[in-house]
Amino acid sequence: MSKYDDLYNKLKADILSGQLKAGDRLPSVRKAGSLYSVSRTTVQNAYFALAADGFIISEPQSGYYVSYHTAKQIEEKSADTKQNILYDFKSGGADRESFEFDIWRRYMKNALRQDERLLTYGEAQGEAELREALSEYVRDKRNVIASPSRIVIGAGVQSLLGILCSLIDSKGTVSFPDKSFQQGAALFEDYGFDVKYRFKDAEIIYVSPSHMTKRGDVMPNKRRMELVEHSAKTASLIIEDDYESDFQYNIMPAPSLHALAGGSNVVYLGSFSRLLLPSIRISFMVLTPELAGKYRENIYKFNQTAAKTEQIALCQYIRDGHLKAQIRKTRRFYTAKARAFAALLAEEFINAQIEISENALQIIMTVPFSKNLDEFEKNGIAVFVESYENGILKLIINTGAVPQNSFKNAIIALKNALS
Amino acid sequence: MSKYDDLYNKLKADILSGQLKAGDRLPSVRKAGSLYSVSRTTVQNAYFALAADGFIISEPQSGYYVSYHTAKQIEEKSADTKQNILYDFKSGGADRESFEFDIWRRYMKNALRQDERLLTYGEAQGEAELREALSEYVRDKRNVIASPSRIVIGAGVQSLLGILCSLIDSKGTVSFPDKSFQQGAALFEDYGFDVKYRFKDAEIIYVSPSHMTKRGDVMPNKRRMELVEHSAKTASLIIEDDYESDFQYNIMPAPSLHALAGGSNVVYLGSFSRLLLPSIRISFMVLTPELAGKYRENIYKFNQTAAKTEQIALCQYIRDGHLKAQIRKTRRFYTAKARAFAALLAEEFINAQIEISENALQIIMTVPFSKNLDEFEKNGIAVFVESYENGILKLIINTGAVPQNSFKNAIIALKNALS
Repeated sequence: MSKYDDLYNKLKADILSGQLKAGDRLPSVRKAGSLYSVSRTTVQNAYFALAADGFIISEPQSGYYVSYHTAKQIEEKSADTKQNILYDFKSGGADRESFEFDIWRRYMKNALRQDERLLTYGEAQGEAELREALSEYVRDKRNVIASPSRIVIGAGVQSLLGILCSLIDSKGTVSFPDKSFQQGAALFEDYGFDVKYRFKDAEIIYVSPSHMTKRGDVMPNKRRMELVEHSAKTASLIIEDDYESDFQYNIMPAPSLHALAGGSNVVYLGSFSRLLLPSIRISFMVLTPELAGKYRENIYKFNQTAAKTEQIALCQYIRDGHLKAQIRKTRRFYTAKARAFAALLAEEFINAQIEISENALQIIMTVPFSKNLDEFEKNGIAVFVESYENGILKLIINTGAVPQNSFKNAIIALKNALS
Repeated sequence: MSKYDDLYNKLKADILSGQLKAGDRLPSVRKAGSLYSVSRTTVQNAYFALAADGFIISEPQSGYYVSYHTAKQIEEKSADTKQNILYDFKSGGADRESFEFDIWRRYMKNALRQDERLLTYGEAQGEAELREALSEYVRDKRNVIASPSRIVIGAGVQSLLGILCSLIDSKGTVSFPDKSFQQGAALFEDYGFDVKYRFKDAEIIYVSPSHMTKRGDVMPNKRRMELVEHSAKTASLIIEDDYESDFQYNIMPAPSLHALAGGSNVVYLGSFSRLLLPSIRISFMVLTPELAGKYRENIYKFNQTAAKTEQIALCQYIRDGHLKAQIRKTRRFYTAKARAFAALLAEEFINAQIEISENALQIIMTVPFSKNLDEFEKNGIAVFVESYENGILKLIINTGAVPQNSFKNAIIALKNALS
């Protein structure tokens, strides 16, 4: 055991046993050093660790104090809260009914039997067979035409954006539609890009046309054409994150920007967390010919992050037509759920305005409200509040992760919270 | 089909049919534009795509020429070469005999049965249970003491270094021992760090103490102590990549830098590609208390890249003691293989000097040689040539991926190549 760990454990024990009480000030780093006969660095590190674990908090220019919530309490509290949430209308999780686990398990088991392939590292760019299957898939589905050599696979859109950032030499301005995609903005900033919002003159324009806002707004075709024309005129690069493009409700299916632009100046991003399982971390990126050339030159820089077993399984799953079937099923399933819940809401809350989002995954509910917002948590509900002003509350309700057989009870809980 | 794609396909067909021959110059972008009645951008993109796919090559200040090797030939050739390599002494792949597939498959199948857990996204930092298991594992094994809150899981060391780069505010100087870890150096450069080699005054010192060189040299304890003292004196951060620390041959097991430093100023990296399967992409990083605090503040920036199924499987696999058993087995297995092959070499090549690397995974063979280096490939051998001068050849032979039952034939092939 190191000295730092000794001190960490001593102080932690003192806090847990109550010898040090919530709000107590810890000795200064210098004092503690002479008190426990250790170096200041040792004390500093023990304090950092206690703070990181939630036992103490740092007050700048003042010192360290025992936290009012010890880490244990925090853990218990967060477990409590989680247990208290019976109806999670915020969750991005999937509904068990939406996914045929048995089929996926069969493909995973097949993949696990391919000993020879699992004995070696995968291709940095992603398994060639899966890239071939994806090349066909996006061509058929979104009219995105690209040879497998232009497709890069990765564990999540974030990993792929990291590669993209590294490929773009001139770190110019990137425009995001709003501040909701914090991760993307932070990544581009880390790579030295200048991040702006809704900035027309940016060299790079990031859009998610089928999920423009938390409300699930879909970009109209006219706007798509304008954006593609703008990009052609200014030679700006569009990053098209086609998230949730498979979900659409009473609007015409919209073409991909990549197809509208004839493949020029558009990097296309696709993922499967919504269509299959959130825990399957496979995304892909279609690079422009120019960026694909740069990728090839710099391929030594990159490693594959997506699990090889899952790549092998997904490839065969796509080839056998299960992905297309699963998309049809998922779309029907989630649209039906949202409509069913919207109908229940409309029935029960006659003074509320109920809308279904354009991507058919969210319900937007506008309702008079005069209580405190913690009413929802108190009644076991997690829900996203879009706005609350002048006695009018706007909720965004995602029914994805709430099983249909608890809809009735969820309505009762919502009634208690709202009235 | 877009215009760009039409042109791409037309030119590709012309090349494959032989209408355009190897070395033929393609019309200039401007000429091709008017020839095919498309915009210059369309031509440029089609040319980029053809170049990316290997059909044409760009000669700066001159134009585009049909490649002497079409993509198809390149593919065929690379498949040929691969088939011709019968004894791959360069590969980082695993030996089928080294790994108990059945046990791993059992744990994966169990993980795949956990429907509820697979329905949700994983924790950004990695599954809490796996972090707990890893915390115990590195404490027992390498005396690295860290609570699970300081452990971050990711798909490969590269992903974890990306997170680390993002957490370090002042992008100072990073020192690498040599140029072999190109990926790491490129990543730090991308994040704005100043990369140097063997530079004592760096703010960050990257080392891989159990795999210092391609020859598998292990850092001596005296040097470890010096490095830790240097880091304490100059407050520089050590990044300790503990790759292959489980492999050691007739030297004393060396302590981790993290343990020697009492956890101060050391970020510890561990991975499993060598111990389990190269295709299992799970690595972990132990942050310093300070960096763990920063991670927590910035957690919104990061996503988990490692597959959730594999994380669940690995956690239970560790808890049931299989990892420790596997490490013992792997070490014994690869050491025995290297020794067996070294003995065969010593017997057959009496004028050669045969050494086993300190990490017991490589054989270093020094032998007189007067032929061309392509003799090895001609004889179906892939091997790393460390040096070849004055008629003396130094080979680094990794027996990891060559099955023991082909040792005798490999020796015959080596004889043909060398004599």
